[in-house]
Amino acid sequence: MNKLKRDRQFRPLPVPSVELHGLFGDRQDAICASTAETLLDRCVAAGMLRAIDTSQPGPGVVIPIQPWGGTTQMFWDSDLGKSIETVAYSLYRRPNPQLEARVDDIIGMYEKLQDKDGYLNAWFQRVQPGRRWANLRDHHELYCAGHLIEGAVAYYQATGKRKLLDIMCRYADYVIKVFGHGEGQIPGYCGHEEIELALVRLARVTGEKKYLDLAKYFIDERGAEPHFFTEEAIRDGRDPANFIQSTYEYNQAHEPVRQQKKVVGHAVRAMYLYSGMADIATEYNDDTLTAALETLWDDLTTKQMYITGGIGPAASNEGFTDYYDLPNESAYAETCASVGLVFWASRMLGRGPDRRYADIMEQALYNGAMAGISLDGRTFFYENPLESAGKHHRWIWHHCPCCPPNIARLLSSIGSYMYAVADDEIAVHLYGESRARFEIAGSKITLAQETRYPWDGAIHFYIEMEKPAHFAVSLRIPEWADGAAIKVNGEALDLSSVMLDGYARIEREWKSGDHVNLDIPLAARSLFANPLVRQDAGRTALMRGPLVYCVEATDNGSGLNGIRLSADASKATTAEIAELRGAVALDLPVTRDETDWGNMLYRTSPPQAREATARFVPYPFWDNRAPGEMLVWVRAGGSSGE
Amino acid sequence: MNKLKRDRQFRPLPVPSVELHGLFGDRQDAICASTAETLLDRCVAAGMLRAIDTSQPGPGVVIPIQPWGGTTQMFWDSDLGKSIETVAYSLYRRPNPQLEARVDDIIGMYEKLQDKDGYLNAWFQRVQPGRRWANLRDHHELYCAGHLIEGAVAYYQATGKRKLLDIMCRYADYVIKVFGHGEGQIPGYCGHEEIELALVRLARVTGEKKYLDLAKYFIDERGAEPHFFTEEAIRDGRDPANFIQSTYEYNQAHEPVRQQKKVVGHAVRAMYLYSGMADIATEYNDDTLTAALETLWDDLTTKQMYITGGIGPAASNEGFTDYYDLPNESAYAETCASVGLVFWASRMLGRGPDRRYADIMEQALYNGAMAGISLDGRTFFYENPLESAGKHHRWIWHHCPCCPPNIARLLSSIGSYMYAVADDEIAVHLYGESRARFEIAGSKITLAQETRYPWDGAIHFYIEMEKPAHFAVSLRIPEWADGAAIKVNGEALDLSSVMLDGYARIEREWKSGDHVNLDIPLAARSLFANPLVRQDAGRTALMRGPLVYCVEATDNGSGLNGIRLSADASKATTAEIAELRGAVALDLPVTRDETDWGNMLYRTSPPQAREATARFVPYPFWDNRAPGEMLVWVRAGGSSGE
Repeated sequence: MNKLKRDRQFRPLPVPSVELHGLFGDRQDAICASTAETLLDRCVAAGMLRAIDTSQPGPGVVIPIQPWGGTTQMFWDSDLGKSIETVAYSLYRRPNPQLEARVDDIIGMYEKLQDKDGYLNAWFQRVQPGRRWANLRDHHELYCAGHLIEGAVAYYQATGKRKLLDIMCRYADYVIKVFGHGEGQIPGYCGHEEIELALVRLARVTGEKKYLDLAKYFIDERGAEPHFFTEEAIRDGRDPANFIQSTYEYNQAHEPVRQQKKVVGHAVRAMYLYSGMADIATEYNDDTLTAALETLWDDLTTKQMYITGGIGPAASNEGFTDYYDLPNESAYAETCASVGLVFWASRMLGRGPDRRYADIMEQALYNGAMAGISLDGRTFFYENPLESAGKHHRWIWHHCPCCPPNIARLLSSIGSYMYAVADDEIAVHLYGESRARFEIAGSKITLAQETRYPWDGAIHFYIEMEKPAHFAVSLRIPEWADGAAIKVNGEALDLSSVMLDGYARIEREWKSGDHVNLDIPLAARSLFANPLVRQDAGRTALMRGPLVYCVEATDNGSGLNGIRLSADASKATTAEIAELRGAVALDLPVTRDETDWGNMLYRTSPPQAREATARFVPYPFWDNRAPGEMLVWVRAGGSSGE
Repeated sequence: MNKLKRDRQFRPLPVPSVELHGLFGDRQDAICASTAETLLDRCVAAGMLRAIDTSQPGPGVVIPIQPWGGTTQMFWDSDLGKSIETVAYSLYRRPNPQLEARVDDIIGMYEKLQDKDGYLNAWFQRVQPGRRWANLRDHHELYCAGHLIEGAVAYYQATGKRKLLDIMCRYADYVIKVFGHGEGQIPGYCGHEEIELALVRLARVTGEKKYLDLAKYFIDERGAEPHFFTEEAIRDGRDPANFIQSTYEYNQAHEPVRQQKKVVGHAVRAMYLYSGMADIATEYNDDTLTAALETLWDDLTTKQMYITGGIGPAASNEGFTDYYDLPNESAYAETCASVGLVFWASRMLGRGPDRRYADIMEQALYNGAMAGISLDGRTFFYENPLESAGKHHRWIWHHCPCCPPNIARLLSSIGSYMYAVADDEIAVHLYGESRARFEIAGSKITLAQETRYPWDGAIHFYIEMEKPAHFAVSLRIPEWADGAAIKVNGEALDLSSVMLDGYARIEREWKSGDHVNLDIPLAARSLFANPLVRQDAGRTALMRGPLVYCVEATDNGSGLNGIRLSADASKATTAEIAELRGAVALDLPVTRDETDWGNMLYRTSPPQAREATARFVPYPFWDNRAPGEMLVWVRAGGSSGE
């Protein structure tokens, strides 16, 4: 069946086409009930509204200029853009006229702020008006534009209100004039990628190819010689030798993107770039971009990714270091970077379902990304370590509050990551209780999933449709799902005959009332890291379905590194934790090292061990109860660790 | 025999009274042959001579001012002071008129630089003359004076030349006038302790109690309220809220020293402070200081010390963090901090031999400190991690070159740490091939050690003396030395009857020709860390005698975390490594994890293990051969790790 590969073009279902229940529905309820409003409140408290309100004096420099010559305050537009996007998605699920009115007010301020030429940026209009386009490398100017564009697209789709969309089209039209190789144009691109993928979204909603072309221009220019960042710096009187984060790898501008083979630099920037590249690859059927992306995908996922889908281990560059360097306690693994990995993975599915991407999308979504927000939707992680000695907790706000609206906009739009549709096929990338509405061959179809996934692996699909139609339903069979089975209308399917790139592709004449039972065994499993990951040597991590598990002090007391598995993961028993909204915990026999050596720091006899049971809970739900130690990679023992 | 405790006052033998061979002699030869000259060369290359040469324009600000308002260039006087001290000690072992002439030139420059009032500081006379005494907290002004004093004392003792000593006495006399609670005096002390212990040395060599009193003044003032650093900052127009390293703990000024119970802040500062406190405790018989020091000693050595005697795990404050927080790969464990621990330990022996201090002195000396200099004496570690992925190597020089002259001056004066003498007793704290000359009860005595220690535990003492005399020889029996035995003139001694605070105290009428055989079994032993040290859980470190061992890639290939001990340390066989100047290696059966998983980053089956032999070498000698990975704490297995 390989002939099908890449012949198909899949686009995600629009956010309002999917109604969610279950775990994701619960997360969305928290966003509607608190996060959406919280984000706006905290943007206001930070001074962001004063920054764009031309009827008031600006707040000035609230977050001090740093040694690198900038401040995170320069990115406030992006925080507002992502917050607007979150509110927009939340309005689908729960109309909220008061919240909508607050966003309308913000949009009104941006309308007044916008320059006659179309330019729009709170910092460079109100604080440093003389510095417009002076330092594209470091100052996030087009990055801010990108997030406002994404907010505008989402808000237009959610409310039908065009004002912000029109504002951002005017700005984008101005950017088209400013950038390029013509006389008086700037032959550059942004140091923090984002505008590229935003322009694709703008093009898709407006139907204007010019925005696609601009996105492609930024992607094609990146890393070209003579190097724009060098020339820009010299023009600006700055010495490239003194660049903050001195390398060109830092923002993936060390060589043209089609030549890049290694995932490097700032992790979020990398993910946003690759997302834009994947979009352009899909839109232009650009196989050279796709080939580069496949190489980069393997590089990331086989050498540089935490088991949580966290990426970018180092705080120093908020990004990548050496292959197999995955420290657990000091892991940076920014929430935004895992969100970006979900973005990229979903866009790699544009050319056809492939579990190579979708499995990782699910893993990063459930673990590295979803960990970034508390169950009540009110507090947030920036870093996502896989071990904590007890001092790492979610915070209310941050001087660089990029992560809260990023994970919120992802979770509130998750329906569009679950399903994608082509002319004659619907792909189900992610499972969860939901109803999806779409149209194939002129037939309006509703596909419902009844399931407790990820807590239980039984998934029942029901189809409702106006009239029978011939098309394919492709169901992802995760690589880890040993013994998955499908029944169509009660009849067992020979999976091997329908597998294509890790999806069961069920092509037939479908009619209302058809039902499919997918059974994904969710046995707990022990994972071991490649021995080149020195930090995980002799250790194992438990997973069940897409979820990574961890031990927390609140269940197990402290001294978590004294825990050693003494049985196979298959011996785990399960328990539902009401405090964690019904999450399934795993209980396993272990040994525990004694913890009281009195005044001995070192001695010649090893710690005495005693038999015990340890409780493992889903990693994304950690730090939602009493604070304390946390550990993902526990010491392996018994038969599995020998 | 406890009645003896604290009744005795021990003072270290002068450096020239001990002639060294064996391992320490070899290290001293390297310092004479290269380090001493290298230090001067590199000080010159850094611009330090231009900084003090009044016949030339100063070099200006060579090392840029940092965000905290200072630069490491401010401490250049300390680098010169420690280098002069190193050269001075090296001259005992190997006269070197050329090197001596270079130091005489430097001293001549300092003589010309000194202000009429006695003040002497290259930075505050030549670069920021208006800032004298403006920021004692951050600018190391008295710290620089202290190191010049130590250099002056050593150079006077080594050469009999008084010029630098006189210069520094004039400066110290001026400091006495400047500091205090009188009208117009500064009621302060230095942010970086050092002057305290230096003044004790100056007092001892000059016999001037006023210098002791000044040292005691600085110690007594530290941490008193109203807080000097706060008041100083306000006078200087600085906001204490913006202090670099914002805490008062950072420089042990958070409370009066006699109330301090926890070792905190910058590790080197802490060690220098406690060293000065111990000196003052000895000189003034100040039991309140001794009591505080005993508490601090336990705090450090039972909760905050690497097995190497490395201390201060964090780079962020070059110092201490939480109890039991001892990360291996990111360990800061500055060479200077272990050198400082040796200083402190040796001074704790002033009130009587006690292996509680001497064992740790030896452990820190051999491991955390001695690792800081290469076998050829030409390259240096600043940080001393206990694990390296292969990128940590000794460097030629550093923007803050405090460590090279610090380890060099320690090793070149090590004789005075080995032996200490009281009225009727000689204590041998450290073992090694050497001849010590001293006088007890009017009798000139030579005590020779014939031994290959630390490679072999057989130590033969021979005594030569003019006439028989009654005194005690106290020999340290390390706590780890199971089965140590002593024979006096061939007759076995009942150790239990002569043990006092971990020393075999052999009191008798000694005469020329007497000999003592001490046998310290040097079986390799496995050490385990307190289970609260999460970073060492499931791991073990090998020691033999005072030496910590490690595995290096050059012997074992890479993938050192794949090594798992499969036998008791007692199964180790030994081998002499010619490349490491005869160091004894330990070979042990282990298992090794497979290292090639191809493109798999995570999988459900653990790495396959194969049987192998691993070679362990002394930690202080690592990175002297082919560069690569290094690991101290290997995975425990077999009977010892269960």
